[in-house]
Amino acid sequence: MEAERTLQDEEITRLGDLAAQLRADSIRCSTRVGSGHPTSSLSAADLLAVLISRHLRYDWRNPRNPANDHLIFSKGHASPLLYAVFKAVGAISDQELMDTYRRSGSRLQGHPTPALPWVDVATGSLGQGLPVGVGIALAGQYLDQRPFHVWVLCGDSETAEGSIWEALDKAAHYGLRNLTAIVDVNRFGQRGPTELEWDLDTYRRRVEAFGCHPLVVDGHDLAAIDEAFGRAREATGPTVVLARTVKGKGVPEVENKPGWHGKALKEDMAERAVQALGGVRQIRVTGPHPGSFSPPAAPAKEPPALPRYEKGAKVATRNAYGEALRALGARPDVVALDGEVSDSTRADKFAEAYPDRFFEMFIAEQQLVAAAVGLQVRGYRPFVATFAAFLSRAYDFIRMAGISQADIALSGSHAGVEIGPDGPSQMGLEDLAAMRAVQGSTVLYPSDAVSCATLVAQMVDRKGVSYLRTTRGKYPVLYDNGEEFPIGGSKLVREGGDVALIGAGVTVHNCLAAADELAREGIDARVIDLYSVKPLDRQRLRDAVRDTGGRLVVVEDHYPQGGLGAAVLESLADLADSVRVTHLAVRGLPGSGTPTQLMDQAGIGVNAVVIAARALA
Amino acid sequence: MEAERTLQDEEITRLGDLAAQLRADSIRCSTRVGSGHPTSSLSAADLLAVLISRHLRYDWRNPRNPANDHLIFSKGHASPLLYAVFKAVGAISDQELMDTYRRSGSRLQGHPTPALPWVDVATGSLGQGLPVGVGIALAGQYLDQRPFHVWVLCGDSETAEGSIWEALDKAAHYGLRNLTAIVDVNRFGQRGPTELEWDLDTYRRRVEAFGCHPLVVDGHDLAAIDEAFGRAREATGPTVVLARTVKGKGVPEVENKPGWHGKALKEDMAERAVQALGGVRQIRVTGPHPGSFSPPAAPAKEPPALPRYEKGAKVATRNAYGEALRALGARPDVVALDGEVSDSTRADKFAEAYPDRFFEMFIAEQQLVAAAVGLQVRGYRPFVATFAAFLSRAYDFIRMAGISQADIALSGSHAGVEIGPDGPSQMGLEDLAAMRAVQGSTVLYPSDAVSCATLVAQMVDRKGVSYLRTTRGKYPVLYDNGEEFPIGGSKLVREGGDVALIGAGVTVHNCLAAADELAREGIDARVIDLYSVKPLDRQRLRDAVRDTGGRLVVVEDHYPQGGLGAAVLESLADLADSVRVTHLAVRGLPGSGTPTQLMDQAGIGVNAVVIAARALA
Repeated sequence: MEAERTLQDEEITRLGDLAAQLRADSIRCSTRVGSGHPTSSLSAADLLAVLISRHLRYDWRNPRNPANDHLIFSKGHASPLLYAVFKAVGAISDQELMDTYRRSGSRLQGHPTPALPWVDVATGSLGQGLPVGVGIALAGQYLDQRPFHVWVLCGDSETAEGSIWEALDKAAHYGLRNLTAIVDVNRFGQRGPTELEWDLDTYRRRVEAFGCHPLVVDGHDLAAIDEAFGRAREATGPTVVLARTVKGKGVPEVENKPGWHGKALKEDMAERAVQALGGVRQIRVTGPHPGSFSPPAAPAKEPPALPRYEKGAKVATRNAYGEALRALGARPDVVALDGEVSDSTRADKFAEAYPDRFFEMFIAEQQLVAAAVGLQVRGYRPFVATFAAFLSRAYDFIRMAGISQADIALSGSHAGVEIGPDGPSQMGLEDLAAMRAVQGSTVLYPSDAVSCATLVAQMVDRKGVSYLRTTRGKYPVLYDNGEEFPIGGSKLVREGGDVALIGAGVTVHNCLAAADELAREGIDARVIDLYSVKPLDRQRLRDAVRDTGGRLVVVEDHYPQGGLGAAVLESLADLADSVRVTHLAVRGLPGSGTPTQLMDQAGIGVNAVVIAARALA
Repeated sequence: MEAERTLQDEEITRLGDLAAQLRADSIRCSTRVGSGHPTSSLSAADLLAVLISRHLRYDWRNPRNPANDHLIFSKGHASPLLYAVFKAVGAISDQELMDTYRRSGSRLQGHPTPALPWVDVATGSLGQGLPVGVGIALAGQYLDQRPFHVWVLCGDSETAEGSIWEALDKAAHYGLRNLTAIVDVNRFGQRGPTELEWDLDTYRRRVEAFGCHPLVVDGHDLAAIDEAFGRAREATGPTVVLARTVKGKGVPEVENKPGWHGKALKEDMAERAVQALGGVRQIRVTGPHPGSFSPPAAPAKEPPALPRYEKGAKVATRNAYGEALRALGARPDVVALDGEVSDSTRADKFAEAYPDRFFEMFIAEQQLVAAAVGLQVRGYRPFVATFAAFLSRAYDFIRMAGISQADIALSGSHAGVEIGPDGPSQMGLEDLAAMRAVQGSTVLYPSDAVSCATLVAQMVDRKGVSYLRTTRGKYPVLYDNGEEFPIGGSKLVREGGDVALIGAGVTVHNCLAAADELAREGIDARVIDLYSVKPLDRQRLRDAVRDTGGRLVVVEDHYPQGGLGAAVLESLADLADSVRVTHLAVRGLPGSGTPTQLMDQAGIGVNAVVIAARALA
C-alpha cells in the first residue's frame, strides 16, 4: 500500500490543509444543526481532497458543461463532506453551509438531491449511487463517446447490498473504463463493525472476481490516493479504489470508535476538534478544468411515424410497445434497456433496429432501472422493460428515481391474472398501487395497440417516472389510427346512462362485452377506458356520476388495494353527490389457468361485470 | 472435473434411467398443456436424479417430518422437472402430472407454490430461492441444531441478481455448512447466452471470494455429481456446486440451441424425444430416509407481559416495538432480524436480551426478508425491522412472501415526513400503498406505545405478511395499559357529530389537537384512530358517515395514492349514502426540516386539519 511519492511536499501540505478544512466544515455544519453524519465524512475527507484538487475535471461554474466528470456520493449520508466540498470549490458559501444545512426549505438536505445543480441523483438509500454511476458511464463510453469520468464514493457497509455487485458485474461486462468506485472502508456501520471490517483482501478478491480492477490504498495517505486515482483514470476497465480509512479520522475523541455513527458532535467537542484541525479555513480549491465539447444538436422532435393497426385486429399491447419504441428510435436520444426478457416485453424490436442504443442488463432489475436513471442524467430518454411483476425488484430504485425527479419510462409486461398458466409469481398484481405511490409518477394502462403506441410516444418527453402496463394476450384494436390519447385523459368507448363500466387495459374488453350483454337486457351501460391511471380524468368520472346517478362499476386486473379502483375513488372523494362504486378486482390468490378462466375466477370477467352492473342499475 | 468413480455401474445405469424418466416426464407434461420450460428442466435432470436417489434425505410420505432435508427450486420455471421428481418419488401420480400441470385449479402450477406440501416457498421470481434457503439453513444450524441439509437448485441466469450474492455472503458470514446451492450452468437465458456462458472459472472465483466452497462438476456426469453432493454434505461451510450442463440435454433437436427457452416441444418432437429417451417409465425411487426427531414441545402461548406505559408520557412507537418484541422473546419460537439499523428500529432491545435468536443481516434488505421467510418455513416467528423506506428494497421478496403465504412480521420505522431533517430518501411515504397491495397482508400503524405493543403481540400469530409502521418521534401515550386493539378494529378517541377526523399513527395526534381547536370554534369533531389499515374497521367508518352526515377528513403522513385515504375510500365505495372526504396527504416532494415544519408544509399538520374540517362542517 506504499505508493510512489510523486507529489511535492508543498502539494501534500496544501492537500492536507484542504482535507482539514473539509473535516472542520463537516463537523461545523452538523454540529450547528444538531444532526448529520460527521464521522462518516471524516473518514473520506482525504479521498475527496485529492479527488477535487487533482482528478475531478469539473467546471463548477457550469454544472451543465457536458465535458464535466461526474461525482456521486453513493454514501449519501456523508452529505456534510459533499457540501464542504461544494464550499471548497466555491459553489456554495460558508454561510449557506452553516445556516441552512438540514433546515427547512434548504437545498442542502440531510441527503443529497438534485435540488443542487452539482448533484446528479438523490442518494441516501445505500447501494444505489454506484449502479446509477454505471448508467452514466454507459452513456459516456457508448453514446457520448467522450472522456469524462464517473467517480462514485461508496461506503463499506453498502457493499452488503447485492446491487453493488450487480453494478460491478455490469461495469465489467460493458468494460467501463470511465468508472471508478471509491470505497471508504472505515470498518464501522451504523450499529457496529461491518461484516468485513478491514479485510481489504476479501474486498479485493471480490472486486477482481467481478471483473473490475481493485486499487487498495491507505485512505489517509494523500500521495497514495493520488497515485491510485491517476491509475484509475488511465485504466482500461472499471476500477475500484479500496481505501482503508478510519471513521472519525482527525478527531481523536471519536476516531475509530463505535457509537458515533450519525451523531453530530456536541458543541464543546466540535470546538476542540475544529481547533485541533487548525481552525476554520476558507481555502478555495480549483481542480482540473474539463474543457468543453458541444454535444450533438438537440434531436429534431418531429412526431415519430407510429405503427398503425387495423381496427378489430387482435394485437397485444406489449407488441405495440415494442413497435412504437422502434419507431421512436428515429430520435437519437432514445435508448432502451431490458432485463433479459426482451423477446417477451418486445423491447427486442428496438434492439434489432438500434443495437447501439440497446443495453441488455440481464436478470438484474435493480441495475436495469439504475442504468436508466444514469442515462437520463446525460440527457438520454431511456425506456426500461421487464415483466410488471419484476419491476417490484427495483422498487426502491424507482422510489429514489422519483425523488431524483429522473425522467425515465418503464414498461411492465405480463400484468395481472391475464397472463394465464405461469401462475402468481409472474403476475404483476400490485404494480399499479406501487407505481402510483411514486412521487411525481405517471401511470398508463392502454387497452389496445393504437392507444398504447400513442402513449409510448408521449412517454418520451414526459417528466418524472412514467410507467406503462402492457398485456400479454392479443385483444382487438379499439381505436382509429391517429386518435389522440392525452396523458390525463380517458375515452368514452360507449355511451350509456344507466351505469358506467370503468376499466383499463384488458378489463376494457370485458366491460365492452358486458355492455353488449346488458344491452340485451335493456340496461344502457356506458364504458370508460381509463388508460391514464395517474393523472386521472376527473371530469370524465364526474360526468359519469352525474349521468348515471352515481352508478359505477370499476374493474381491474390487480389486487383490490391501491390500483384503478383506489384511483377512481380518490378522485371522487370530495364530490358531494352520492356515488356507489362496485369494485371488481383480484381478491384471492390466483393460480394457473387460461386467461379467461383466471379472470372469471377472480371475478373480473365479463359475467362478473354484468352481474355487478345489473345489481346497481 | 473428473471425479473418482465411486458408483457401481449398476447404480449408474439406474440413475441414468431415472434421469431419462425425469426428462421424458418434463417433456410430456409441458407438451400436453402446451406451455412450460422443458429445456431448462432437461439440463438439470441428471443433478436431480442423483440428488433424490442418494443425497436428499426426505420422507416423502411425511413432508412435515422436521428431520427432512429441504429442496428448493430457485429456478422455479423448471417446474416440469420438480413435478417429475414428485412423480418419481411417488408423491404425485403420472396422471396428476399429465392431466393437471398448469391447468386451472391445479396444485401443479406454472411455478411451484406451497399449494404442494413438498414445496416450502413459491419461486419463479429469480434469485429468491437461495436467499430463502439461507434462512432455512440459519434455522437448522443455529436454532433447531439438527443435521438436515438445504439444497437449492439455481439457474445460471439468476446469478446476475444481486440477491444471490447477498445470500452467499450471508451463508459464509454465518458459516452455513448445511446449505448447498446447485447452479445449473446451461449457458442460456431466456433470449440468448448468459453473461458468463460456460466460464465456470469466473463463477468459481466469485463463489470463493464470497466465502463459499465451490465444487465444479460436469452436470451430466452422474458419478461426478454424486461425489460433489457427498462432499457438499460433509463440508464445513456453505457449498456451491457449479454444474456445467447443456440446455435441452437429451433431446438433440433442442440441445444447446438458443430459441428454446420456455417453449413446450411440439407433439411430434415430444414423441420422438420421449422415444429416444427410452419411452415412458414409471420408475419409483426411494432416496435416503431422514430418520426423525421430535421438535421441542410447542411453546406455551401465554400472553406475554407486555411493556406498560404511562398515559401522557411521550414515547416513540419504534421504542414500543423494541420493548414489545423483547417481551415476546419469552416465546422460544420468536426470532428477530434487522438490516444494520437495530439501534434505530429498536430491534436492539430484542438482540440484547436474546442474542441467540437475533440475526444481523447488515445492509441487505432482500436477504433480510428472505431469511425471515426461511425461518418461518421451520416454524419460527420472525420479526424483521428496518426503515420503512428500505423495505421497498425487498418489495419483490415481500410480494413473493405473500404468494408463499409466509407468516412474517415486518416493522418499518422512520415513516413519513415526520422523520425530519434526513430528507425524502429516508422517508417511507409509499409503504402503506405497497404493503396493502401484498396478497393476504395485514397493515398496522399505531399512534401510541400502548397500542403498538398490543399490536406487536398480535403479529406473532398472525397469518401471512404483517406490516407495522412505526414513528421516529415521541408522542403522548393515548391509551390505558391493557386496552384491546384487535386487528381489524379502530378506536374512537373522541366523540363528535359535526365532522370525523380520521388518522393513523402520527396524524392521530394532529387530529386530536385539531379537534381541540375546532371545539373552541364550536365544531364538534370526532377523532378516529385507524391503527388497523388493513383490514379496516368498516363499521366505525360507516357509523361516522351516518353520524356526521358524511363529513370525513382523512389525514396521512404518506403520498396521496393508495394509503390510508384509499383504504377508507375503498371501504366506503359501495355505500349508498353521500360522503364527502377531504383527503390530506403529502402531495409534493418533501425536503429537510423539523417534523412539525415538514408536516405543516405537507398540509397534514394541525392547522391543515382544522381548515379542512371547518370547510366541511
